[in-house]
Amino acid sequence: MNFSIRPATKDDLPNVLALVKELALYEKAPEEVTITLQELEEDGFGSNPLYWIILAENKNEVMGMSFYYIRYSTWKGKCLYLEDIVVKEEFRGQNIGKVLFEETIKAAKEMNAKLMAWQVLDWNEPALNFYKKFNAEMDGEWINGKLRFN
Amino acid sequence: MNFSIRPATKDDLPNVLALVKELALYEKAPEEVTITLQELEEDGFGSNPLYWIILAENKNEVMGMSFYYIRYSTWKGKCLYLEDIVVKEEFRGQNIGKVLFEETIKAAKEMNAKLMAWQVLDWNEPALNFYKKFNAEMDGEWINGKLRFN
Repeated sequence: MNFSIRPATKDDLPNVLALVKELALYEKAPEEVTITLQELEEDGFGSNPLYWIILAENKNEVMGMSFYYIRYSTWKGKCLYLEDIVVKEEFRGQNIGKVLFEETIKAAKEMNAKLMAWQVLDWNEPALNFYKKFNAEMDGEWINGKLRFN
Repeated sequence: MNFSIRPATKDDLPNVLALVKELALYEKAPEEVTITLQELEEDGFGSNPLYWIILAENKNEVMGMSFYYIRYSTWKGKCLYLEDIVVKEEFRGQNIGKVLFEETIKAAKEMNAKLMAWQVLDWNEPALNFYKKFNAEMDGEWINGKLRFN
């Protein structure tokens, strides 16, 4: 199947949120998605965007996305952080994830990022195998800490 | 011992880099620190800062810092990410870390962050015990992935 790649616009946000929810369901935490369309709009499309999105689509149907932002490593400097990469279930197995990942690497290099980083659940074998193909370094020695404000 | 808290300025960056290196040594990865003073200066003190620092000092001697930036969670929205919190070895046990952590929580709330997040090495017992006192959620189920560009 053919597909094309482009940056997301505000109008894509309902589809983006649907992909976020699809991934959260797969990651067994659908109830954790409390973000709203309005927040996504304000935070991603103002004068100082907090994130960017690359979409894969076919005939105006969104098939998948890469959602990323800038992090700052005190060891390395500016980094691209890939928050979510997801392809809709019915479109898997067509290299869409690979193309989205490669486009994200390109975006990282364009912004002079020193590295590209992400996280993956330790039981997510398909994703772990996917990253292996890119010779990614994988490190399970870190624990995520979190305080919620609500 | 008395100490005071303030945001870092450009002039503090040599001390900041020394703290980054001290923490990297403790984390058994001193060779990973390749960032330069010039990069820290450009990235933190331009028109669009990529990070912020809270310092603890006594009589102009820097004793510790919290180094943070904004992340974006597709589940929650805007978050504060605490990249490094470090107190110089000779000043530990004086609540400086606690005050820096609390000041960082304050900064997170001021920027309307939905949560504050960080990572800690799974063998770093003193740090794990420190975070426990704040009732932080700790999650060891994620693996860090990384691609380096050089």
